[in-house]
Amino acid sequence: MSKVYITRRERFNAAHKLWREEWSDEKNEQVFGRCSNKNWHGHNFDLFVTVKGTPNEETGFVIDLKTLSELIKVEVIDHLDHRNLNLDVDFLKGLMASTENVIIKIWERLEIKIKELGAELAKIKLVETENNFVEYYGGNEPF
Amino acid sequence: MSKVYITRRERFNAAHKLWREEWSDEKNEQVFGRCSNKNWHGHNFDLFVTVKGTPNEETGFVIDLKTLSELIKVEVIDHLDHRNLNLDVDFLKGLMASTENVIIKIWERLEIKIKELGAELAKIKLVETENNFVEYYGGNEPF
Amino acid sequence: MSKVYITRRERFNAAHKLWREEWSDEKNEQVFGRCSNKNWHGHNFDLFVTVKGTPNEETGFVIDLKTLSELIKVEVIDHLDHRNLNLDVDFLKGLMASTENVIIKIWERLEIKIKELGAELAKIKLVETENNFVEYYGGNEPF
Amino acid sequence: MSKVYITRRERFNAAHKLWREEWSDEKNEQVFGRCSNKNWHGHNFDLFVTVKGTPNEETGFVIDLKTLSELIKVEVIDHLDHRNLNLDVDFLKGLMASTENVIIKIWERLEIKIKELGAELAKIKLVETENNFVEYYGGNEPF
Amino acid sequence: MSKVYITRRERFNAAHKLWREEWSDEKNEQVFGRCSNKNWHGHNFDLFVTVKGTPNEETGFVIDLKTLSELIKVEVIDHLDHRNLNLDVDFLKGLMASTENVIIKIWERLEIKIKELGAELAKIKLVETENNFVEYYGGNEPF
Amino acid sequence: MSKVYITRRERFNAAHKLWREEWSDEKNEQVFGRCSNKNWHGHNFDLFVTVKGTPNEETGFVIDLKTLSELIKVEVIDHLDHRNLNLDVDFLKGLMASTENVIIKIWERLEIKIKELGAELAKIKLVETENNFVEYYGGNEPF
Repeated sequence: MSKVYITRRERFNAAHKLWREEWSDEKNEQVFGRCSNKNWHGHNFDLFVTVKGTPNEETGFVIDLKTLSELIKVEVIDHLDHRNLNLDVDFLKGLMASTENVIIKIWERLEIKIKELGAELAKIKLVETENNFVEYYGGNEPF
Repeated sequence: MSKVYITRRERFNAAHKLWREEWSDEKNEQVFGRCSNKNWHGHNFDLFVTVKGTPNEETGFVIDLKTLSELIKVEVIDHLDHRNLNLDVDFLKGLMASTENVIIKIWERLEIKIKELGAELAKIKLVETENNFVEYYGGNEPF
Repeated sequence: MSKVYITRRERFNAAHKLWREEWSDEKNEQVFGRCSNKNWHGHNFDLFVTVKGTPNEETGFVIDLKTLSELIKVEVIDHLDHRNLNLDVDFLKGLMASTENVIIKIWERLEIKIKELGAELAKIKLVETENNFVEYYGGNEPF
Repeated sequence: MSKVYITRRERFNAAHKLWREEWSDEKNEQVFGRCSNKNWHGHNFDLFVTVKGTPNEETGFVIDLKTLSELIKVEVIDHLDHRNLNLDVDFLKGLMASTENVIIKIWERLEIKIKELGAELAKIKLVETENNFVEYYGGNEPF
Repeated sequence: MSKVYITRRERFNAAHKLWREEWSDEKNEQVFGRCSNKNWHGHNFDLFVTVKGTPNEETGFVIDLKTLSELIKVEVIDHLDHRNLNLDVDFLKGLMASTENVIIKIWERLEIKIKELGAELAKIKLVETENNFVEYYGGNEPF
Repeated sequence: MSKVYITRRERFNAAHKLWREEWSDEKNEQVFGRCSNKNWHGHNFDLFVTVKGTPNEETGFVIDLKTLSELIKVEVIDHLDHRNLNLDVDFLKGLMASTENVIIKIWERLEIKIKELGAELAKIKLVETENNFVEYYGGNEPF
């Protein structure tokens, strides 16, 4: 049966900074530049979750998008939206709040839950600004 | 020789509904939600067709984009644009008009025709709203 | 006190056709082209509602955006989203479902309700496709 | 001579919260909702500065866009980008950091400087998310 | 009767440079920067033409958009698309090819033709890049 | 260790034409259509460079985006922005200036330099208009 990929976008607005406590202010600024501003900065993040599966014969759905949207909200958006990524999020505690690290943690929260819905998490894309974004395939390297 | 991927976007505006005749109204609404509205709803669809090939030495082209655009119009857009996906489209008859099913049928209409043009259909992307889209690789699973 | 304009975007997906019952099929097609397809077509509509007012000294708000969003949903989106503009909408009955006519009717539904919230409806913009949109200032002609 | 309007877009990423110290936590959350999160949240802001003037006969310019861009950077972006709008910005001190208030303050910083360049500040637009933005005409009400 | 504004977008891709023959190379580069590159550069231009009028009672149209699109193509796009704005365009000859000057000339070509269609040209917007655009109201200054 | 893909967008505005000197004018126009206009045309190009790697434990970075941005500017943008792709660019000399050929040459300029930064070039995307773009994986064919 033919596999189709379906993607749902959700959004969240969050504050963060790139900062290592054990480093001096100078080193933090040297490495992280403006992203190390002590009083934080923030972004509108766009999160794209791509799920792979075979369309159901009766519904034509790979996955019910309302269910997928609700899952992403409960597992990810409710934790990150209008939050501080460094201070407010249990599953990011102790982690440098780079988009690279955040996307891996989002994958870990969604992978099994999507399997329980009968589909397969295939890709996540996290857009920080119009000029940069990260993508993650669960550690796979399609190219 | 190095393979390059080139993508052409075309657009169509169509009506559809998600509805199974053999189901009760209640079941249709329960499964398909607002998409089951009896009198239809509609979307601006964006269709991205990606073709793979080696650039021609004289033209630098993988495929002539005017030819590709014309092919997509004749095979797909003329059938779907300002149409009802459930009622007006021969190649969708008897099929649940989900984006998952529509993208597979579009692939089937384009695959051989593009081969006849000396290139290879590699991917189709069909965007229904800014929040959801489907992608299809002819059944291949690159990730 | 300085007036600021604040805009809220909401979206709806709807079916419609441009069609006059008293005209022949030929005349309908001649005047309305592909938009006269008998079995409907549809769009993703973007609705921008612009409200004018003085920022409140305590909140810094011209209007509470959650309240404005909720008002637009109750008065407009719930009536139009996943609906047929010709068949399903009380306040569009008997009207040619052109964007020009729809935007006037949306204005009429919002103007007083926004005044009751202590602000002033200044402009509505209704986007049908990336290539065409209408704007309405309640009959005013700023330019 | 014919007046033309020219607009330059600049961007900044900032943290903020909507919060009144003299209010209880409950009242802050009731009025400002998720925007009152104590540890801040943030946005990618798009700032559009529109200047009005007559094209220069030799250059065809209303204003030199590099000069305008540099002015916006020095007067606005350098103060707001990767900053906390509540804590880090001199000209926003003591002010509720709503987009309505921020846009008025940006106008005040640019108006005279643009006049000194021989043009006239006509409009500012500040986009906070894809769903809301504010516009300001220096207190004028064109509609 | 209530006036509604309707906008049609058309696009063209063109080369140009900002250059005065009577100036030295140094002065050209000093004034026009990278835009003075002798061998040209180019842009994807987005042209938005806004027409004002009362919706027709039978059609609901301010103006037939196919007619408007065709007019813009014949009067503007066919002259500018895949052209050199300095060399190939009769109505731009002898003029500095700045967006400010181009938009005035486009207005002059469209104003009467749109009046002949029973509507009124209200505004033109010409977008050169995502960071700059010009707007023209026929010399009017709504704000 | 998990590989993450990070993408940086840069932009350039350039003139070009599709033209073979050894062909007649008629053949050039027949093959390349409007793109063969003798006096050039141009585009706003969007260049997306995707790099693959493991996030650094201390910084959370696959690659420092400022370093990547600077590299792309020095190696690519400074050569292409406000230039003529046929006349002004050393590394495109003697080559048909199609997007397919340009993207391969950009890859060749970036691949080793990115390896020297400890990461791996994974994909380049070059967008010519909203309707067409090319993608290149260094000759790999992930799908």
